[in-house]
Amino acid sequence: MTISPLARPFPDMPPIAGVRIGTATAGYKPWTRSDITFVELAEGTTVAGVLTRSKCPSPEVDWCRANLGGGLARALVVNAGNSNAFTGAAGRAASLGQVERAAALLGCPAGQVFAASTGVIGVPLPIDKARAGVDAAHAALGSATLADATHAIGTTDTFAKGAVATAIVGGRPIRIAGIVKGSGMIAPDMATMLGFIFTDAAVAASLLQDMLRAATAGTFNAITVDSDTSTSDTVLAFATGAAGNAVLAAATDPGADAFAAALTDVCRQLAHLVVRDGEGATKFVAVTVEGAEDDRAAKVIALSIANSPLVKTAIAGGDANWGRVVMAVGKAGEAADRDRLDIRFGTTLVASGGRVVDGYDEAPVAAHLAGSDIDIGVDLRLGDGRARVWTCDLTHGYISINGDYRS
Amino acid sequence: MTISPLARPFPDMPPIAGVRIGTATAGYKPWTRSDITFVELAEGTTVAGVLTRSKCPSPEVDWCRANLGGGLARALVVNAGNSNAFTGAAGRAASLGQVERAAALLGCPAGQVFAASTGVIGVPLPIDKARAGVDAAHAALGSATLADATHAIGTTDTFAKGAVATAIVGGRPIRIAGIVKGSGMIAPDMATMLGFIFTDAAVAASLLQDMLRAATAGTFNAITVDSDTSTSDTVLAFATGAAGNAVLAAATDPGADAFAAALTDVCRQLAHLVVRDGEGATKFVAVTVEGAEDDRAAKVIALSIANSPLVKTAIAGGDANWGRVVMAVGKAGEAADRDRLDIRFGTTLVASGGRVVDGYDEAPVAAHLAGSDIDIGVDLRLGDGRARVWTCDLTHGYISINGDYRS
Repeated sequence: MTISPLARPFPDMPPIAGVRIGTATAGYKPWTRSDITFVELAEGTTVAGVLTRSKCPSPEVDWCRANLGGGLARALVVNAGNSNAFTGAAGRAASLGQVERAAALLGCPAGQVFAASTGVIGVPLPIDKARAGVDAAHAALGSATLADATHAIGTTDTFAKGAVATAIVGGRPIRIAGIVKGSGMIAPDMATMLGFIFTDAAVAASLLQDMLRAATAGTFNAITVDSDTSTSDTVLAFATGAAGNAVLAAATDPGADAFAAALTDVCRQLAHLVVRDGEGATKFVAVTVEGAEDDRAAKVIALSIANSPLVKTAIAGGDANWGRVVMAVGKAGEAADRDRLDIRFGTTLVASGGRVVDGYDEAPVAAHLAGSDIDIGVDLRLGDGRARVWTCDLTHGYISINGDYRS
Repeated sequence: MTISPLARPFPDMPPIAGVRIGTATAGYKPWTRSDITFVELAEGTTVAGVLTRSKCPSPEVDWCRANLGGGLARALVVNAGNSNAFTGAAGRAASLGQVERAAALLGCPAGQVFAASTGVIGVPLPIDKARAGVDAAHAALGSATLADATHAIGTTDTFAKGAVATAIVGGRPIRIAGIVKGSGMIAPDMATMLGFIFTDAAVAASLLQDMLRAATAGTFNAITVDSDTSTSDTVLAFATGAAGNAVLAAATDPGADAFAAALTDVCRQLAHLVVRDGEGATKFVAVTVEGAEDDRAAKVIALSIANSPLVKTAIAGGDANWGRVVMAVGKAGEAADRDRLDIRFGTTLVASGGRVVDGYDEAPVAAHLAGSDIDIGVDLRLGDGRARVWTCDLTHGYISINGDYRS
């Protein structure tokens, strides 16, 4: 497996007080690597989550959704190599059996055990391996780091992806650490994203949920590799409270702004890392839309650009094909006035007022597109709506990863 | 240029009474092929049209939209090699200048001259070449066939695409002939589709418009190559009335059903030919969705499947990856019940009731996917909604055509 040319080194990641980790090999595939992760969380840990909007979610997603309302978590179990999605009653029973085993080991309600699975679709999680794996990972609690967990939750990711941030909350320093898996290669799986964020801050579950939802809107929900939404996408945040700050319970509490900013920062770092490991990616692309009717319209237009195969192949080829950006704005269906549109590549204004700029010089644009971090900007000049999304280019690598085999 | 492996021979296409054609070389690119087409239509010819919903349309699209209400056409002018889209005031002036020249040559109102252009975006149509081209093509009227016109309107199409049908209307045989250009290779253009349909039937413009709109819904508007909607998509239908049938003025008139069926047949043939010449296509894929809440929901889900890069690359690889079909159903956002879903490849039921079928045998599915015409079927088992759309696979050829160059 070739490491993505857009890879970033794993950060120096301190342990989070109240979080103990064990990993083991359940053997979901014929491999010897760790593929099950057990995270024990201190009593009183609060939880928040954002889950796929797919109408065909995995049983693990259903389980998380059903239990987030409780607001408390004692454990997280993650299986890699089998997504358990679209596996009917057998898959639901296996997932529940694994959760109940974890709850029994900790002596907590099953509803305080959160679960996620990633990998092949359509094969029920093998219940015997799932239970034995939980036992083994539980026995290993305390021996693994978040870096180890990042490797254990990955499937065909080409590099480990993590992010950290700190803040002062109520006079106390708090830490936030997050890990994420994204899309990879080789296996006949769709790209799936799992993200897990741990903090030693004390935060009420309802506030954590509000903050996580707000943070994901402009981060995880603003990235796209190929427009295909997984059945298993899951982001969970756990707050152990071990930092000893006065519990954050309302957005107006002292330190709440700092915590929200740090949480958003971690989400943004993790989301960008997923794009940097996008299948076949050679360019990291930021698309900024301004001047739309409202923020919602701006995001629809930004995603239309970011998901356009013609825009993405042009970026791959280093081609300053701004006509394809016009096309993507036009097809988005949101208000746009062809004759007011501005388009930039990098810092260079390319088209304005419905046509290419006078004396257009492609040289600085070509230089920008030759780099690995690309900025596309669109100003609709209609209103104050604004959005930014991130994507990668569409290359032969994507076709090879997803099309060059027989399962 | 390699001819698409899915190409079809150009049909034996009779002339349509009331239609005279001339082609010429305006020289929009440094080539010697014909790139301008002038079609003269008999007095009294009615016209209907369906145009791109892009918010950034070309001036030719704006012109057609503004003049379709008049219902009468004396001429059609088509430029190939330059789409004239996103060219501001200069592009609008050039298009109008060309239309007015054509009108002067025929002594008809400018509003009875319809125009379309296809090719590179962002370069104003050169007005001198556009006017001289109209003169030359007008001088050649009567010397070209519809087959000649098909070549003259193409850009980087790999084969000429046409369709014919006949019907008996009011006791008279009538003919319908259509030509279309689709997507190609080499040039840094987005895929654009232009379709022109000619009939010797006498049909009132308002009825022709209703029939054309109805016919496109399940044909041109049910195909996708790469989900990218052009700034220039145009389908125009012209009825010369030379067949001498009693004018069709209402859907209940004798022969109206037969005419509508023949018109839809021509649209379907042409739409399928566009897919068969899709960039990089090696498989022709029909996606049928049944049992949705309503027809609209069925079409959204069918297009979600047909536009999914992961589904399209799986088809390219001959991979029976039904999990990706589940994913595409789930992400569509329309009502779906994971545990009722049926999925078929060809005639083989693969998944049912939320999981793979008992004793699933991949052999017949693999055999089906090894062919060039692929059927994917989904039954949601929720309601009576039904839709069928067509697409092609996503291959290295698409990436090469659209990404492997610097403009």
